[in-house]
Amino acid sequence: MSLLVVGTVAYDAIETPFGKTDKIVGGAASYIALAAKYFYNNIHLVSVIGDDFDQNFLATLKKEGINLDGLQIKKGEKSFFWSGKYHNDLNTRDTLDTQLNVLADFNPIVPENAKNAEFLMLGNLVPAVQMNVLKQMSKRPKLIVLDTMNFWMDIALSDLKENLKEIDVLTINDSEARQLSGEYSLVKAAQKIIEMGPKVLVIKKGEHGALLFNKTEVFFAPALPLEEVFDPTGAGDSFAGGFIGYLAKTKDISFENMKRAIIFGSAMASFTVEKFGTENLINLTQTNVDERVQEFVNLVQFDISLV
Amino acid sequence: MSLLVVGTVAYDAIETPFGKTDKIVGGAASYIALAAKYFYNNIHLVSVIGDDFDQNFLATLKKEGINLDGLQIKKGEKSFFWSGKYHNDLNTRDTLDTQLNVLADFNPIVPENAKNAEFLMLGNLVPAVQMNVLKQMSKRPKLIVLDTMNFWMDIALSDLKENLKEIDVLTINDSEARQLSGEYSLVKAAQKIIEMGPKVLVIKKGEHGALLFNKTEVFFAPALPLEEVFDPTGAGDSFAGGFIGYLAKTKDISFENMKRAIIFGSAMASFTVEKFGTENLINLTQTNVDERVQEFVNLVQFDISLV
Repeated sequence: MSLLVVGTVAYDAIETPFGKTDKIVGGAASYIALAAKYFYNNIHLVSVIGDDFDQNFLATLKKEGINLDGLQIKKGEKSFFWSGKYHNDLNTRDTLDTQLNVLADFNPIVPENAKNAEFLMLGNLVPAVQMNVLKQMSKRPKLIVLDTMNFWMDIALSDLKENLKEIDVLTINDSEARQLSGEYSLVKAAQKIIEMGPKVLVIKKGEHGALLFNKTEVFFAPALPLEEVFDPTGAGDSFAGGFIGYLAKTKDISFENMKRAIIFGSAMASFTVEKFGTENLINLTQTNVDERVQEFVNLVQFDISLV
Repeated sequence: MSLLVVGTVAYDAIETPFGKTDKIVGGAASYIALAAKYFYNNIHLVSVIGDDFDQNFLATLKKEGINLDGLQIKKGEKSFFWSGKYHNDLNTRDTLDTQLNVLADFNPIVPENAKNAEFLMLGNLVPAVQMNVLKQMSKRPKLIVLDTMNFWMDIALSDLKENLKEIDVLTINDSEARQLSGEYSLVKAAQKIIEMGPKVLVIKKGEHGALLFNKTEVFFAPALPLEEVFDPTGAGDSFAGGFIGYLAKTKDISFENMKRAIIFGSAMASFTVEKFGTENLINLTQTNVDERVQEFVNLVQFDISLV
């Protein structure tokens, strides 16, 4: 039993209305693994970095018990770098710079001891690279979750659609759901996307929460109204990490349990946005997480008896 | 015991991406009263119309048991008219035409038998007119709910702030909460607005649901994800009508009961947006309402035991 996380481990430089960072550690797989490890501790990470990467962060991942056998370190090369600036509403951003570096020819290699992982989280990457990982698995995982973005819908849609046939859960945001389906109504969009392959669709709406759909049911998890949203980077990945981490812990992939899982995912995302980068995710205690989840319970819990 | 509803009864001409109407019946008080009457049947309406107004609609209100003694009909004058066009996302709209007509010098007169109403809903109107109504009450109602909009924040802010000192619940949308408080974070905005007077603030976020705040607590009610959103006009008023109607029915103005009330309000709003104008609100059955509320329960209900 293990959870395999595939995605970027990278440097980001972020500007928000509240401040600005130099190069800090980011990347989908970093957030996913750090969020998932609050729930589950047999995590393998597959990614690629250059030899310029922060050794302290790698030590942190190892200390947290995350297996880095699948992390390729390319001598003399530089790590993937992204720089972006968020607008005042924090819901939209401009990309200022993207340097693919090691990511340009990333050929993921799943370590032998991770090929039978029962839970597979394919973080946002070139769809062909995600498929490459899928094909290396020695048996079909119990649950495959895939995250992607509008960029791949623009330039690699047919590859992405091949992936959709192979997975269980797709996580995208609301505008991506509209783009992928050609439907404005998220209810109709979900129906169309589920016909493309995934049994379950998670539509992430940022500060407006997340919707969970299967063919016949829908569930809504709110985002926690926060006093300060500092930096939204990594929120979606932390969400995905909490989601799959909780499912791996409970080994229950029913729709009912996925409802709980997206509440835990939302809780992890709410920590991430309170500080820059992965900072807030690293030092949480189990009590912090439990208390945050209790805030979600309080936020939406009501008692109506229909007579 | 009664519920007094004050607001416009008007004509609207609406254009959405899905169609276009000629003059149809609208107005805040129309939606509020029609939504409230599913819960409570001693409703007085105070408003003003011209003698051009649709007699069938007045007959419908009467048939529904809504007391129209406070509805002034101005001979030889025309009813308030608003025309607007919604953008593709249905969250924003342009006003194409506003003809105040009878509303220009509206002097509301609360009938004697409504002056002791225990529930008072002040629909969106000139703040001074709302205050005029408040001053006519023979005793302080058990609950005063006030709805307003950005327009009055622009041109009559000091009058509006006087009103805020006198009321229990304020309902505004998210951008209005930001404008009124000068805070981007809705949590901070709510704290500042509650300091202005209202004990409770409802922030309406349209398709993203609604937040209910008091000084120390917060509750979130989602909007129902709908296959078709046809016309958002009147959604906020239907919401307010369901909210105060449910509170009047149950006579319980605790925060716990307000949580239930905003779920019922959200259910009424979800009916309104499915068709143009008041059409969908008129012919509902109690079963329709109960089933819709059950959809809200299913949408957000989850069961987490934190060990």
